[in-house]
Amino acid sequence: MKPNLEWLKEHILLSDKTAISQAITLVESSRTEDKAKAHELLNWAIQQQKPSYRIGITGVPGAGKSTFIETFGKMLIERGNSLAVLAIDPSSSRSHGSILGDKTRMNELSKRPEAYIRPSAAGKTLGGLAGNTREAMVICEAAGFNYILIETVGVGQSETAVKNMVDFFLLLLIAGGGDELQGMKRGIIEMSNAIVINKADGPNALQVQATKTEYARAVSLFPLDESGQKTRVMSCSALTGTGMNEVLQMIEDFKSKTANYKESNRQQQAFLWMTKTIESNLLENFYSLEKIKKELQRAKELIAQGKRDPLSAAHEVLSHYFETKNAT
Amino acid sequence: MKPNLEWLKEHILLSDKTAISQAITLVESSRTEDKAKAHELLNWAIQQQKPSYRIGITGVPGAGKSTFIETFGKMLIERGNSLAVLAIDPSSSRSHGSILGDKTRMNELSKRPEAYIRPSAAGKTLGGLAGNTREAMVICEAAGFNYILIETVGVGQSETAVKNMVDFFLLLLIAGGGDELQGMKRGIIEMSNAIVINKADGPNALQVQATKTEYARAVSLFPLDESGQKTRVMSCSALTGTGMNEVLQMIEDFKSKTANYKESNRQQQAFLWMTKTIESNLLENFYSLEKIKKELQRAKELIAQGKRDPLSAAHEVLSHYFETKNAT
Repeated sequence: MKPNLEWLKEHILLSDKTAISQAITLVESSRTEDKAKAHELLNWAIQQQKPSYRIGITGVPGAGKSTFIETFGKMLIERGNSLAVLAIDPSSSRSHGSILGDKTRMNELSKRPEAYIRPSAAGKTLGGLAGNTREAMVICEAAGFNYILIETVGVGQSETAVKNMVDFFLLLLIAGGGDELQGMKRGIIEMSNAIVINKADGPNALQVQATKTEYARAVSLFPLDESGQKTRVMSCSALTGTGMNEVLQMIEDFKSKTANYKESNRQQQAFLWMTKTIESNLLENFYSLEKIKKELQRAKELIAQGKRDPLSAAHEVLSHYFETKNAT
Repeated sequence: MKPNLEWLKEHILLSDKTAISQAITLVESSRTEDKAKAHELLNWAIQQQKPSYRIGITGVPGAGKSTFIETFGKMLIERGNSLAVLAIDPSSSRSHGSILGDKTRMNELSKRPEAYIRPSAAGKTLGGLAGNTREAMVICEAAGFNYILIETVGVGQSETAVKNMVDFFLLLLIAGGGDELQGMKRGIIEMSNAIVINKADGPNALQVQATKTEYARAVSLFPLDESGQKTRVMSCSALTGTGMNEVLQMIEDFKSKTANYKESNRQQQAFLWMTKTIESNLLENFYSLEKIKKELQRAKELIAQGKRDPLSAAHEVLSHYFETKNAT
């Protein structure tokens, strides 16, 4: 890693996009020689964090996430804000369409000095598919972006991880009364703070209204979320701008109603982040041992053959681990 | 633990309720001297398991779970089946009403030789609130009960654990259009294979039909579950018996449509059971170390003060662990 830390720090504070990109590459690096530097940079960045609002945006391929973020981002900038867009792309492990592949995405937004866009490949850590998104977020907040948008394609497990790092979770859908949700993971509707039906334009507008009514009915049956809020349901056209002011207003309204909750939730998220990091490291260490790999394979075969109950199998594998540990 | 294993095995095969209860107490025991015996018994039991269908039943307090299980259980027996009812009671850690407290529950059912009822307090394992329910289930299946009903009160985290050990997950509700769900954990609706609105009797019947229609609309928006099935929505009165045949028929229908899925799902559940057991033991071992407790406390304080980012804090705690480990 070439750039020195002092140069990075100085230029992150100036919202220099090159420095931000290099810093994110550094904290994403899995090279041993980068780790100490990455931790030093993160410890510095966390103390430089400016107030921000973190929004997770997910939706099926074709829901118009890019257009939505482009329009939404420009509206934020018009109101004096800045924003960083971090995309989590699971396309390496699943075949549901790539975020990175689309070179023309957010074309206008990416040219604005107030916006920073980072397509970040999903990490492979045990702790979740969100990889180093949390760390990238901290760098962006040190650089002063006051809105952080995290984009996922909504087909895998990354949504739970994203839910655990944002203040607001938005599900972007299109008209279709549930059909378009097939293929998504169950649970995503109940996870959302708002469901926004996009593409309310042209001949499609009527169907969008019908879909909106259906979702509004559905979410009225859900329990309140942990901040005591109901799930919001809205429609918009990111293409024409119809309804986009209302979407922004709805998020601002949620933000002001949950200001206290946000602080305690962020603290919980930070503890969870530490815990997940510790636990995934411990387990990675355990599963990488050759002896454990062999014993696990054997245990799985015995279970599949109905010759061993899972509890006893687990304790057999563990006994090999603690034996080894005590012997060294 | 008094009874010897040979006596237990022999009497479990005779569906002797005393032996079953003693066996479950043995596998639930946290005493070191019971562990080897418990593992031997479980390894034996898993090879004695008879075919079974496992149903998770959850619902808010007041939804009529006991009456439902009493009526449903008697119907199963009339059709030549036998059943074990295992209740997970989180009342020790939460204050949402106790399953165990109600002494008159399932009075008739408990007197039938074809039914075994076990109110089992929730365990405190890291792996989930479901404690030793999986192990109790294996004992009951060795005893030949061909339906296993697992009951929870639906307010905590135990539902995910139960979902991971059953073939069918049923959410029992009453009329109220969502109001009665307040206080439950979000996500429970999308987790369910069927939503059954109970108490469709007397002046309440009309309102139940309206609630049923609302839920039917809502679930039509959900993605299919992993077995490719839609969530079913029905109504019944467990008290008068109205609709109970249809509920049973609906479950039988699901069962026959997902026969192949059930087998692969059970294998996955068994692997997950082993993995969870291993991981919770490893983590328990880690968190019980005095040095780690102290370091974690310190890390949390630094995070709360904004002086440390969670990733670096995690690596500091880990360095103390691996140092200690390598030093021994």
